Amino acid sequence: MKVFVNGAYQTKFGELWDKGLDDLMVEAGKGAVLDAGVEMQKIDAVYVGSKLSAWVMGQNHLGGLAAEVLGVNVPVTMVEAACASGGVAVREAIMAVESGRYKNVLVVGVEKMTDVSSEVVAEALMGAASSQERNAGLTFPGLYALMAREYMSQYGLKSEDLALVSVKNHKHGSLNQNAHFGFGVSVEQVIKSPMVASPLRLLDCSGVSDGAAAVVVSSKRNKKSVEVLGSGQASDSLGLSGRESLVEIKATRLAVEMATKEAGIEVEKDVDVLEVHDCFSIAEIMALEDLGLAEKGRGIELFWSREVELEGKRPVNTSGGLKACGHPVGATGVKQVVEVVKQLRGGLGERQVKGAKIGLTHNVGGTGATVVVHVLGR
Amino acid sequence: MKVFVNGAYQTKFGELWDKGLDDLMVEAGKGAVLDAGVEMQKIDAVYVGSKLSAWVMGQNHLGGLAAEVLGVNVPVTMVEAACASGGVAVREAIMAVESGRYKNVLVVGVEKMTDVSSEVVAEALMGAASSQERNAGLTFPGLYALMAREYMSQYGLKSEDLALVSVKNHKHGSLNQNAHFGFGVSVEQVIKSPMVASPLRLLDCSGVSDGAAAVVVSSKRNKKSVEVLGSGQASDSLGLSGRESLVEIKATRLAVEMATKEAGIEVEKDVDVLEVHDCFSIAEIMALEDLGLAEKGRGIELFWSREVELEGKRPVNTSGGLKACGHPVGATGVKQVVEVVKQLRGGLGERQVKGAKIGLTHNVGGTGATVVVHVLGR
Repeated sequence: MKVFVNGAYQTKFGELWDKGLDDLMVEAGKGAVLDAGVEMQKIDAVYVGSKLSAWVMGQNHLGGLAAEVLGVNVPVTMVEAACASGGVAVREAIMAVESGRYKNVLVVGVEKMTDVSSEVVAEALMGAASSQERNAGLTFPGLYALMAREYMSQYGLKSEDLALVSVKNHKHGSLNQNAHFGFGVSVEQVIKSPMVASPLRLLDCSGVSDGAAAVVVSSKRNKKSVEVLGSGQASDSLGLSGRESLVEIKATRLAVEMATKEAGIEVEKDVDVLEVHDCFSIAEIMALEDLGLAEKGRGIELFWSREVELEGKRPVNTSGGLKACGHPVGATGVKQVVEVVKQLRGGLGERQVKGAKIGLTHNVGGTGATVVVHVLGR
Repeated sequence: MKVFVNGAYQTKFGELWDKGLDDLMVEAGKGAVLDAGVEMQKIDAVYVGSKLSAWVMGQNHLGGLAAEVLGVNVPVTMVEAACASGGVAVREAIMAVESGRYKNVLVVGVEKMTDVSSEVVAEALMGAASSQERNAGLTFPGLYALMAREYMSQYGLKSEDLALVSVKNHKHGSLNQNAHFGFGVSVEQVIKSPMVASPLRLLDCSGVSDGAAAVVVSSKRNKKSVEVLGSGQASDSLGLSGRESLVEIKATRLAVEMATKEAGIEVEKDVDVLEVHDCFSIAEIMALEDLGLAEKGRGIELFWSREVELEGKRPVNTSGGLKACGHPVGATGVKQVVEVVKQLRGGLGERQVKGAKIGLTHNVGGTGATVVVHVLGR
């Protein structure tokens, strides 16, 4: 059965102190429904992806909140998978349409992160890691720093190389008016920025943002439709100590295998544009390798050759990625789909990838315990 | 497409201070898989229903934790819908099988509530209510007390009537070795128990428990299979102030309509046994009315006539319900399905409903913002 994304909307990402979870859900939800050309009362079900609301806002049961503020009585279901909450919500909506129960399903990814102190956010984020990692005093920059150190040790990657990821994504983000950090940065700025968890510096890390994104998943094609060609999801040990390797994300390999097999495509051969999970600069390099675009240890060559830049043959993270667009965690996986849908429809102006026909989204929860990959085509 | 529940397992509910979320997920998950006669490595996906782990255990991303402790790399997805988390997880698993992507899906509902103070649990539970209700200082007993007062005022229900719900459910629970509160209580004990939120007394309220329950949802029938005849889910305003009525749960009416239409049955005519959401005594009376077993205001007559008792024509909450079996919130909706599956299979000994062919589960999130209903048959 064919499934389509017919509507897509992203709010501005940023420090949105004048907006609550409800405001963001309404703006994104109504925006996507309008874009899909349906009425809210024709939506058969809603999925919400969110992670931190219990800790940060004292609110869970976001399904109930969404029902209230969107004014619907249909099934509303919240899914949580750390920073992959949005991607998993999209996948649940796709399967729900495939089940034959629904024709039009709204997916809203939403997060409020900036109304509390950074200590509270850091602690809340660590809910996505294992209890052993929490009890050891690790943070997410610390966990990814362990991976980065191992990677740099095995493959001789330098800090100047790592910096190229942030430089590219900020360059892309400077063309996105919805980006939280929509400014360019230089290699020198990155490698001289404050150390967060060695070897990761401030400008190697995604920031803390508020925001929402939404899509409408439908059983019928319309003029704006982008088709869901494949969907994959996989899991791995919650804690790093249970992984087979620190320099690859096994769940990415499994999820992309599932999604591309379903789509009948190969990433290297067929995909024109990608949004990948660059929560930290090292994560994007590992992701591109695990997705099949480079051999392990050689992902940095894609940056040296500039093929992943907007002007290159296969641009990655045209939205600015998590790094520059911002990373309101529950919204990110949905925003990736929004960005790819817009690229495939065309008309994105300065950041349009010319002639893009097939796009891929890659959304990671935690340090790789959950990964969701979608292949979209037009 | 037909979907079946092939495996079912419930852990003991109680103050399980020697067991963590991981232990409970493993016991329930492996128990259900064994009961279904499949191997864990043949499970195509896992759904986890849970509500409080972020607050109470500092842990979310339970999908990743489940993948780790169950030793699987398949898609694992956590859903949260307050006290309906378990029921929603079962519904997601059903739709996932219906999508054609999976043959065998494990659903685990799990909650740890007793490792922290009752103040922490009370605050965490209120995450399922609206911010207005939290800010007004309301608690869940307080919210249900508002409904109980309005109901008693409109229909002349007395405290002695309300007590009959708890007396029945404790009587049933005393026959369930997995029940947390497996002892009988008298009307006098109920109406003399300490006042929690007038008119609701201690023995009108479900308790605080740890526990887990699991089912295996499959596309193929086996000897133990119980068929999913219908599934319904509906939503309403998160806060009571947005509801059309305080004495009925609209989402129950919508969800049961959806589930029974799909099953092609009528509750009054066809259902032999029910597990309904008796978080407070008043909730069971309202539920039986909203499910279509009595006119509004006359639900208590089902208790006077004893037809909802084990020996009656249509027993309700043979497990002991949330009241006596216990209410580890994320586990409850799955446990309801486990109990009905066991009733339909037969062999439950003292609490077996003779000749039960069709059963119904009814799971409520918050004060009724989310309701899930399943109709099962054998």
